[in-house]
Amino acid sequence: MSHATPGTPSTPGRVHLDNGGRAPWHPLARQAFEQALADGWADPRRLHAEGRRAARLLDGAREAVAAALGARTQEVHFTPGHTASLHAAVASATAARRRAGAGVVVSGVERAAVLHAADVAGERRTAEVDRLGRVDADTMSAAVRAPGVALAALQHANGEVGTIQPVEAVHDAARAAGVPLLVDAGASVGHVAVPETWDLLAADPADWGGPAGVGVLAARQRVRTAPVGPQDEDPWAPGGVSVPLAFAAAVALQAVEADRVAQESRRRALVERVRAQVARIPDVEVVGDPEGRLPHVATFSFLYVDGEALVTELDQHGFAVGSGSACTASTLEPSHVLAAMGVLTHGNVRIALDRTTTAEEVDRFCAVLPDAVARVREMLGVGGL
Amino acid sequence: MSHATPGTPSTPGRVHLDNGGRAPWHPLARQAFEQALADGWADPRRLHAEGRRAARLLDGAREAVAAALGARTQEVHFTPGHTASLHAAVASATAARRRAGAGVVVSGVERAAVLHAADVAGERRTAEVDRLGRVDADTMSAAVRAPGVALAALQHANGEVGTIQPVEAVHDAARAAGVPLLVDAGASVGHVAVPETWDLLAADPADWGGPAGVGVLAARQRVRTAPVGPQDEDPWAPGGVSVPLAFAAAVALQAVEADRVAQESRRRALVERVRAQVARIPDVEVVGDPEGRLPHVATFSFLYVDGEALVTELDQHGFAVGSGSACTASTLEPSHVLAAMGVLTHGNVRIALDRTTTAEEVDRFCAVLPDAVARVREMLGVGGL
Repeated sequence: MSHATPGTPSTPGRVHLDNGGRAPWHPLARQAFEQALADGWADPRRLHAEGRRAARLLDGAREAVAAALGARTQEVHFTPGHTASLHAAVASATAARRRAGAGVVVSGVERAAVLHAADVAGERRTAEVDRLGRVDADTMSAAVRAPGVALAALQHANGEVGTIQPVEAVHDAARAAGVPLLVDAGASVGHVAVPETWDLLAADPADWGGPAGVGVLAARQRVRTAPVGPQDEDPWAPGGVSVPLAFAAAVALQAVEADRVAQESRRRALVERVRAQVARIPDVEVVGDPEGRLPHVATFSFLYVDGEALVTELDQHGFAVGSGSACTASTLEPSHVLAAMGVLTHGNVRIALDRTTTAEEVDRFCAVLPDAVARVREMLGVGGL
Repeated sequence: MSHATPGTPSTPGRVHLDNGGRAPWHPLARQAFEQALADGWADPRRLHAEGRRAARLLDGAREAVAAALGARTQEVHFTPGHTASLHAAVASATAARRRAGAGVVVSGVERAAVLHAADVAGERRTAEVDRLGRVDADTMSAAVRAPGVALAALQHANGEVGTIQPVEAVHDAARAAGVPLLVDAGASVGHVAVPETWDLLAADPADWGGPAGVGVLAARQRVRTAPVGPQDEDPWAPGGVSVPLAFAAAVALQAVEADRVAQESRRRALVERVRAQVARIPDVEVVGDPEGRLPHVATFSFLYVDGEALVTELDQHGFAVGSGSACTASTLEPSHVLAAMGVLTHGNVRIALDRTTTAEEVDRFCAVLPDAVARVREMLGVGGL
């Protein structure tokens, strides 16, 4: 058995800069998980002392998450994960408004889970984004006001490029039109302040330093939802969720909220340094809004570079990064987000800084990136361009 | 933070006999989880070293579970949990056979998740069970052979009363009729040998000493399934599963399989002792098949007793038990399993022995139960009956 600190890269000197959506566990999440495994391993639906103790931990977790999100405890539900939250929110909110119509208004840069869920639940209507990845508030508001709209979905911030969306303005329009607004805050909760202008809000513990295998969906009490799928005691997590995971997620959120502002400015400065350094590399586009953005995400697209090759090249030199153009075993398509923005979909590299990422690590990354890009261009025979 | 051994009751002297569906973690599962948290916390779909390491752990987990179930690695899928496995299996297998019809043949004692999924996916056709909780193989086989059947579902063993079902015979009939058979082995895997006569098989890590928050669904390669719900890279677990949970589940299964036969005979002897002792209490029905049964489950229904009151009475005396007639906050109906068997649905108590349950604990339970029953009857004013 390995004795490396769980949740941290176990190879010395290695720099992990791919922390969006699956960050290392916060140390307090680890402690909370152990505590909850000791005290809350039983089924919280049972009547005996062990069951009641598990139920109390789960209630406490809901309460803590609700406080962090500006919601009431009974408005917060745990789900099997962020994708499950988004699927359930789109399906159940749309089903509850069948009479209003089947239209689901989305921005073009929503997560694939929202786009696919909209296709299944009704008729997807897409509000285009600009080259920075931002939807125009007036355009989306007009789409929300159109007849036959059951639901609108607008992410708080885009996890691939960092751009923050005009959630408040669109929510104003949605409220006036009587259309519920789903806000995907999976890339922003724990990193920046999240507005309270939402009707349904999905948040991702695995992104803020909590565990994967549990998600959060908050639904305002005023929002009607209709259960979809087979009947279950818990329509948001059929069969129930793991209490230790939910508890660890809540403790991690409290922990990251406690020093969020300091971490926000620290990481924002590092990201600005990276964006400035990378802009000096020839034939690069620094992607996403330079101002209204997540503090910890930086994204670039390089001309004459294959994204998968660049990820591999950096990996061999000790740096783990993400890419919107690298193919995993099962995803052979480049990022729909980059395509919707009209920026280069190949040669893309994305970094998301963890709370533990140091300035020294960022500087080392900036130092190796130009040569890595040059080597990949060399391999592709475009070194002289 | 508590320093009790995680996954074990933290109150000294307390006896936890409600281990069906949510057992304490096996110690090796705990170790495996820590190892996987160190080495496999990253997203297994990413291309860098951390992602590939997580993917290898996940592949290893699938391989280990497949070996234990007599399946091929590529036939095994992780899901968000046992209920999710059952929902997905019923929905996707039924959807793939739309042309055959919408009939879903089930036994009357399947889990609620199967019954509700069958109602949503098609038209449920129920094969009744006898007073021991067993379906008649000929009756169910005839139902499977009838026109218009898309899917049949028969559990391997009933987790509430322990009765083993004639899975082999029904699978013979199903194969001859070209109807896939879903076997819910959520109460039996890790406790008894599981037959390989299935087309889809669902198994529950939380029942065998692995974590909650992850499930297992195996589908033979010959079985057609159609994706249901929004498109996703992983149709069985949209968004992917937690690698540490899957790895811990697999290691726990290997561990319990390693001494399954010894644990089976040890616990069977204890359960026979309990069943014999309880039968001496006046006005009791010892429920389920005396022979063809799970080795670790024992269930009784007492006349003139309220199940919820008896669970509470035993809890106050240090014993945690389950009940098919106790109401949780959200389930106000008594067990549909007991109702289908035609036995008393009130005054029900169920115990499921963990691998760590000792003979001394079982004897203490047998010693306190008669007085607890008498006290509850006294409270209800039927002490003299």
